Amino acid sequence: MKVLVTGVDGYSGWPLALHLIARGHEVVGIDNFVTRKRVKEVGSWSATPIPSFPRRQAAVKEIFGKDLGFYRGDLQNYAFVRHVLEHERPDAIVHLAEQRSAPYSMIDVHHAVATQVENLTGTLHILYAMKEACPNAHLVKMGTMGEYGTPNTDIPEGSFDVEFNGRKDHMPFPRQGGSWYHWSKVFDSGDVMFASRIFNLRATDVMQGVIYGVRTPEITDDRLLTRFDFDETWGTALNRFIAQAVLGSPITPYGRGEQKRGFLALEDSMQSLRLALENPAAPGEYRVFNQFDASYSINELADRVGRIAAEFGLKPVIEHPADPRVEAEQHYYNPIHERLPALGYKRSRELDEVVREIFTDLLRFRRRLEARRHVVVPTVQWRVADSGPLLQARAGSEPTLNAEQPPPPTSPSIGSPA
Amino acid sequence: MKVLVTGVDGYSGWPLALHLIARGHEVVGIDNFVTRKRVKEVGSWSATPIPSFPRRQAAVKEIFGKDLGFYRGDLQNYAFVRHVLEHERPDAIVHLAEQRSAPYSMIDVHHAVATQVENLTGTLHILYAMKEACPNAHLVKMGTMGEYGTPNTDIPEGSFDVEFNGRKDHMPFPRQGGSWYHWSKVFDSGDVMFASRIFNLRATDVMQGVIYGVRTPEITDDRLLTRFDFDETWGTALNRFIAQAVLGSPITPYGRGEQKRGFLALEDSMQSLRLALENPAAPGEYRVFNQFDASYSINELADRVGRIAAEFGLKPVIEHPADPRVEAEQHYYNPIHERLPALGYKRSRELDEVVREIFTDLLRFRRRLEARRHVVVPTVQWRVADSGPLLQARAGSEPTLNAEQPPPPTSPSIGSPA
Repeated sequence: MKVLVTGVDGYSGWPLALHLIARGHEVVGIDNFVTRKRVKEVGSWSATPIPSFPRRQAAVKEIFGKDLGFYRGDLQNYAFVRHVLEHERPDAIVHLAEQRSAPYSMIDVHHAVATQVENLTGTLHILYAMKEACPNAHLVKMGTMGEYGTPNTDIPEGSFDVEFNGRKDHMPFPRQGGSWYHWSKVFDSGDVMFASRIFNLRATDVMQGVIYGVRTPEITDDRLLTRFDFDETWGTALNRFIAQAVLGSPITPYGRGEQKRGFLALEDSMQSLRLALENPAAPGEYRVFNQFDASYSINELADRVGRIAAEFGLKPVIEHPADPRVEAEQHYYNPIHERLPALGYKRSRELDEVVREIFTDLLRFRRRLEARRHVVVPTVQWRVADSGPLLQARAGSEPTLNAEQPPPPTSPSIGSPA
Repeated sequence: MKVLVTGVDGYSGWPLALHLIARGHEVVGIDNFVTRKRVKEVGSWSATPIPSFPRRQAAVKEIFGKDLGFYRGDLQNYAFVRHVLEHERPDAIVHLAEQRSAPYSMIDVHHAVATQVENLTGTLHILYAMKEACPNAHLVKMGTMGEYGTPNTDIPEGSFDVEFNGRKDHMPFPRQGGSWYHWSKVFDSGDVMFASRIFNLRATDVMQGVIYGVRTPEITDDRLLTRFDFDETWGTALNRFIAQAVLGSPITPYGRGEQKRGFLALEDSMQSLRLALENPAAPGEYRVFNQFDASYSINELADRVGRIAAEFGLKPVIEHPADPRVEAEQHYYNPIHERLPALGYKRSRELDEVVREIFTDLLRFRRRLEARRHVVVPTVQWRVADSGPLLQARAGSEPTLNAEQPPPPTSPSIGSPA
């Protein structure tokens, strides 16, 4: 099958291209390299040294003996998108080319607008170009589990049976984003759902958990490494904790650290996306996959990192800065995730094993982390009238609640658990 | 109270300014006149002759003895929005300045993107400028009943109690837009809800039904007339039917005409907005009003127009072109609307009386309608592979189902009633 991967230069896009090529699929990529630029904008870089794209292509050619097609361009340009789709007529499109950082979207009004406008426009351009150029192709669109927020009920895969005032219907599950970024993904979901209906497109909307990991089985050579972000803006929880431990910095779960999220190894994200591609949605079908392996609290992960750090001779402390995010710190969390297992999804490796692998790699690239040591603590505050950082430094890896810590702010918004 | 009205040159914005001024409030307006331009773009104009804005201001001064403040500018420009809010520090903002036509948003990819990007950006700019300049002001944001679609259950005012897998929460009611425009309003609702939470803003999100009418009690002089659109893109159902009857053209309810919608007289929309303003939301509160007076099927309205037309010596036929829209043609419809009545909302006048008033005015401006006769039939098709126009011309005003008419398309989307 021929697969077009937008955002092929990114953390997921690159290993997806390798994974699909290794499985015998033809891959064509699009990127505008804006993530490389924006990570620089916040003073950071990838912990792994990543080659320029032409060198990446050359490594693929040498190692896999396959060509990786590539178009440099911007999804904001409809003529470009339509040209690529008309020229390539892919069987499937994996759309990963979005501004993917919640903290980045919260910096100020301009970052908020850029995030929502770029993400929406790119998706609309792909939807219309598909209608024009390849209406039978299958769109696999990257969303986030964060679209749902943390309701006090289970979370279904996209939609559920509603009973209200004695009548029934099957409806989309309510979405409650926690940042302008998360809302941009909610909005994309609305547009993809609507387009699948009016243009009769095949669409899989992926509500993905937080990914962790630095490599996949196809990354057999340093020239094939994917990027690894560890700064406050672009790095995600588990990856960032390991980088902090390697740096000898405190590990910083936000707030009480009792927030729960779905997590997924990079390798298993690739497995999941491939399963979606190899089992496409029907024409006109809009289906949602909750794509994660298991839920953990942030504290569980911080503890886990602390324990495994000791195997590498590291002794990180765990601190709890005040949560800069807009999220419940204590909440019910039980998202359903049955559709990918029904297609054959199986966990590839245990969490501890992947954490050890990340430590091993990051210790190799320790000097790159050292050179950007200042980027591992949060600086973007999401709310008005923030109460300032609240640090609870302590030795050891067993986080406990500080009795003097104020209770989490009660939120005036609907839908937050009691 | 000082009220900033964005879109003050528009169909609702203009009579709202008059209504608030007549009630003793101070009004400042913003507009960029893009609706005048876009109505021209589709070959139409307002049935009522509307003066230039400076002449409108002069008429207000002469008739009410009051100044109507005005800034010409675009909400896409954040510096402009922030400047106006900092300079005026209004007590409330009524945000009406959005691309408001569903058919316009469906023309092509560029109109889809423009609609969603402009509406989202304008709203985000207002939310951030409020945070910076007037965090205690009350935002009254115009949305649409169309955000909900037509679920097979009652429709609450914004949110409802959910029970799922044995657990309960109070959540936003699922939104299911029927055009890129409707989705843009859904997206705005998400952003306003989120901003009220993180910026502690007061917000009323108005899910408004279809408005009809040409005048309000404050329009005592032709220089104070508001615009009246009757073309397929900018005109709405009831208003357009009356224009069709005046022109001697067939009245054209789309499809079977059994679609039901909430409707509201222009005068009662002004009453409702004033009630929201005079009873503001609390800081951090996001509340939703379902703002309409009564539900009617499109056929009921077409019949009503046909009957009243006879009083004016007109004998319109009713035709049923194939529905160009993406909507269920037969569906349950029972939205709850209790919050505005609880604040004192009362219907001002009966539907028939308002329809007669519209006929009287449009007959005065018949020559302006005649000059744009070609714009009253639908040309924008919303779906792919459309089956072409399906006309059922017949005399009289009693629409019946043509037995040969194909059944309405079954929709693959979730949430459409069986």
